[in-house]
Amino acid sequence: MAEDVVTTPEAEETEESRDPYDRLVVRAGLADYSPVRGCMVIREYGYAVWELIQNWIDGELKATGHKNAYFPIFIPLSFIAKEAEHVEGFAPQLAVVTHGGGEELTEPLVVRPTSETIIYDMYRKWIQSYRDLPLLLNQWANVVRWEIRTRPFLRTMEFLWQEGHTAHASAAEADAEARLILDLYIRFIEGELAIPVMSGRKSESEKFAGADITYTMEAMMQDGKALQMGTSHNLGQNFGRAFDVWFLDRDGERKNPWSTSWAVTTRLIGAIVLVHGDAKGLILPPRIAPIQAVIVPIWRDDEQRAAVETYVAGIAADLAAGGIRVEIDDRDTVRPGFKFNEWELKGVPLRLEVGPRDVEAGQAVAARRDTGTKESTPRSELVARSGALLEEIQQQLYARALTFLHENTHEAGSLEDLARGLEEQRGFYRVNWCEGQGCERAFAREKATVRVIPFGEESEPNGPCIVCGEPARARVVVARSY
Amino acid sequence: MAEDVVTTPEAEETEESRDPYDRLVVRAGLADYSPVRGCMVIREYGYAVWELIQNWIDGELKATGHKNAYFPIFIPLSFIAKEAEHVEGFAPQLAVVTHGGGEELTEPLVVRPTSETIIYDMYRKWIQSYRDLPLLLNQWANVVRWEIRTRPFLRTMEFLWQEGHTAHASAAEADAEARLILDLYIRFIEGELAIPVMSGRKSESEKFAGADITYTMEAMMQDGKALQMGTSHNLGQNFGRAFDVWFLDRDGERKNPWSTSWAVTTRLIGAIVLVHGDAKGLILPPRIAPIQAVIVPIWRDDEQRAAVETYVAGIAADLAAGGIRVEIDDRDTVRPGFKFNEWELKGVPLRLEVGPRDVEAGQAVAARRDTGTKESTPRSELVARSGALLEEIQQQLYARALTFLHENTHEAGSLEDLARGLEEQRGFYRVNWCEGQGCERAFAREKATVRVIPFGEESEPNGPCIVCGEPARARVVVARSY
Repeated sequence: MAEDVVTTPEAEETEESRDPYDRLVVRAGLADYSPVRGCMVIREYGYAVWELIQNWIDGELKATGHKNAYFPIFIPLSFIAKEAEHVEGFAPQLAVVTHGGGEELTEPLVVRPTSETIIYDMYRKWIQSYRDLPLLLNQWANVVRWEIRTRPFLRTMEFLWQEGHTAHASAAEADAEARLILDLYIRFIEGELAIPVMSGRKSESEKFAGADITYTMEAMMQDGKALQMGTSHNLGQNFGRAFDVWFLDRDGERKNPWSTSWAVTTRLIGAIVLVHGDAKGLILPPRIAPIQAVIVPIWRDDEQRAAVETYVAGIAADLAAGGIRVEIDDRDTVRPGFKFNEWELKGVPLRLEVGPRDVEAGQAVAARRDTGTKESTPRSELVARSGALLEEIQQQLYARALTFLHENTHEAGSLEDLARGLEEQRGFYRVNWCEGQGCERAFAREKATVRVIPFGEESEPNGPCIVCGEPARARVVVARSY
Repeated sequence: MAEDVVTTPEAEETEESRDPYDRLVVRAGLADYSPVRGCMVIREYGYAVWELIQNWIDGELKATGHKNAYFPIFIPLSFIAKEAEHVEGFAPQLAVVTHGGGEELTEPLVVRPTSETIIYDMYRKWIQSYRDLPLLLNQWANVVRWEIRTRPFLRTMEFLWQEGHTAHASAAEADAEARLILDLYIRFIEGELAIPVMSGRKSESEKFAGADITYTMEAMMQDGKALQMGTSHNLGQNFGRAFDVWFLDRDGERKNPWSTSWAVTTRLIGAIVLVHGDAKGLILPPRIAPIQAVIVPIWRDDEQRAAVETYVAGIAADLAAGGIRVEIDDRDTVRPGFKFNEWELKGVPLRLEVGPRDVEAGQAVAARRDTGTKESTPRSELVARSGALLEEIQQQLYARALTFLHENTHEAGSLEDLARGLEEQRGFYRVNWCEGQGCERAFAREKATVRVIPFGEESEPNGPCIVCGEPARARVVVARSY
């Protein structure tokens, strides 16, 4: 059956028909639906969040010796087929260019779903000796995966990401790199996005197509479902072998390099919405908020207006000088109450209200987005107090999400427990599992998957496999997911 | 005829067969040829230059009220056809996706060659009132134009760029925006890239497909050919009308917005190579050099090495603290002479040589890449002197390029003069022209084009059209170009 690609006005879902998440993403100005099915437009506000994500990750990657490069968006179809598991994983998701410049192409080109294959074709030219290793590259790029059911940020046909691709002279070094990046991601997601994660490795059937080990971080959304926040793959020698990359090692032997790849995507923006949002709209963690504080001036006549606006401009200048991302909402076409609602919808962590009486008293009213509490603060303390409040909000959002994660992570001692739990109680389930794929399919029948096999003793089994009753190999986290 | 897209080892040009520019770009580590015909890989060093370009442009765009967003890479083929001139201009250059997820698509999608069409489809939703204007958006993205003859950076099938797309409530405001951006680009190209440009507007036949006016900047390469450095288009109401975008103006009337679009691309990196390079390799203007100063330690034995390396680490820390992008080349696998050549090839503006005698004397030897001159500088003055030298190099590169531009810009009083001049003397030719397309074709027969119609009195004719002898409408710049 041919596939429709263009959204017509008739086919487009009406706003009412979308679920609350989809509506919020559009109403808060993070993204909008495009005329191409499955592709979103990232609007200014959403892109500003992405830029803050990029800044942090890019800075840390550079600080750990990684460099950015850029590889072509087109990959010859035959390249995808060179790594056996890779082609099996990605073939159904490919967008294929068959014509260029008015001619049919001799070999179709695919729009990159991920760049391992074209990158390893280049690595064959660049890697000759152990002196060329480690090679630590990253690229910021768009990728395309043909998806049937899409949702803004969470799963789109085109998305933005960074993809790191490193090559090393030993298996241990490659694994250390994959773990280093996982830790970097966790620091970012927990520290900046205020989202606690459970980390570990994926099961054999859930790992990346072509990886030896996939490390993952799973976060719990407010509906109890899991969202994979990013992955870091130890690729072993699979791609080096498939793409005929060889280096002369110190010991005089020719070897395929050991390699890694890892990525986080614009999906992180969806996670922020799903973890922190409430009935009023978004709540952005201050460290990732494009606007950390919004000032709403309140006045009734021109005389008041002049006084308030002068005062407010001074406050904004002080806050900006103090390193706070601040904006004044000086529109005179809408009332303060409308502005309050709009900035709450957009999740700005701190609102400062300033009316004529505040000017007289030399103060401002600070309202927290997370708790809704208000306090009057003298102007002389406003910068310090705003900074402290933003830090408190950051910590509070993380603490709230961590409590939610703990409260909704359960034990399931049997398949029946698991099935009932998943139906009646949202959340993650710790279960003992033999790591057999047959038993894994029993989870799938409950519309759940093994999200993560945690590191260390957290995954030590404390009973038999809940499906087959044979000795368990690991205590894993099973959940429904996005 | 079907078109080959994949470069096989046999089909790939050998390094020797490429011209000096192509070889230099690869040898200096800016880019490499990819297996996909016409697509390059931007390597770490080239991408670092691009990041410096991005930082400056992005900062200035934000300072002038523009915001970044991101629009889909795929555009329904039918969209391209909505603006009549636009489809004529871009149809031959399209890469077309006909299959996705294993199915044939009902309507092919093109990979964006530029984004006006999909952006104006969104602007129809977002623009309702004069209050929604001006809308000042920009995106950093990859675009694809199917090109037959490609060269790294100068003309590639896929390239990176920023594309600005703004909408305004009046014709005057849109034109002011297009000029504002042109001025911003000129400040960047002359000030940071040290490349003088001639600016003005394009002729009717050379302007962007769908624009009322295309403003351009043209630079002269060392072979006398012109390179278009970037363009800023006043699109009039063409796209607003074609995409049915309407706003209610202050005067109560419904109108199509006036709009602009503008871009600079990774081509700028090619311009840096072609304008400043010499027989030894690149010369990077300091403000855009990823490494502004490289320190080469020189020693013969371990004792000397220890002393030199300690000394050099201190210098590097001082320079970095002084805001200079510095690197130490501490490889022990190659000799200093090899390093000198390599860093000259890569165009690092300043080299600091430090041997045991320099350590004793408390100094370093500073070698300029542009002039080759060397001087000993006391360590206590090294940061200040390095900063001053980098500034001198920046100015000197610009002055040299400006002199070259002036010396190679000629007058041509007749078509014969122009034809002889283009054959015998490289450079730009100022000619009087009636602005008729018939006469423009006479330039084309000399393999030249009207590069720019300068602003103001610079384009006032001082004689009849050199082709038809009728009264000239402008004195324009004609040249061969990349």
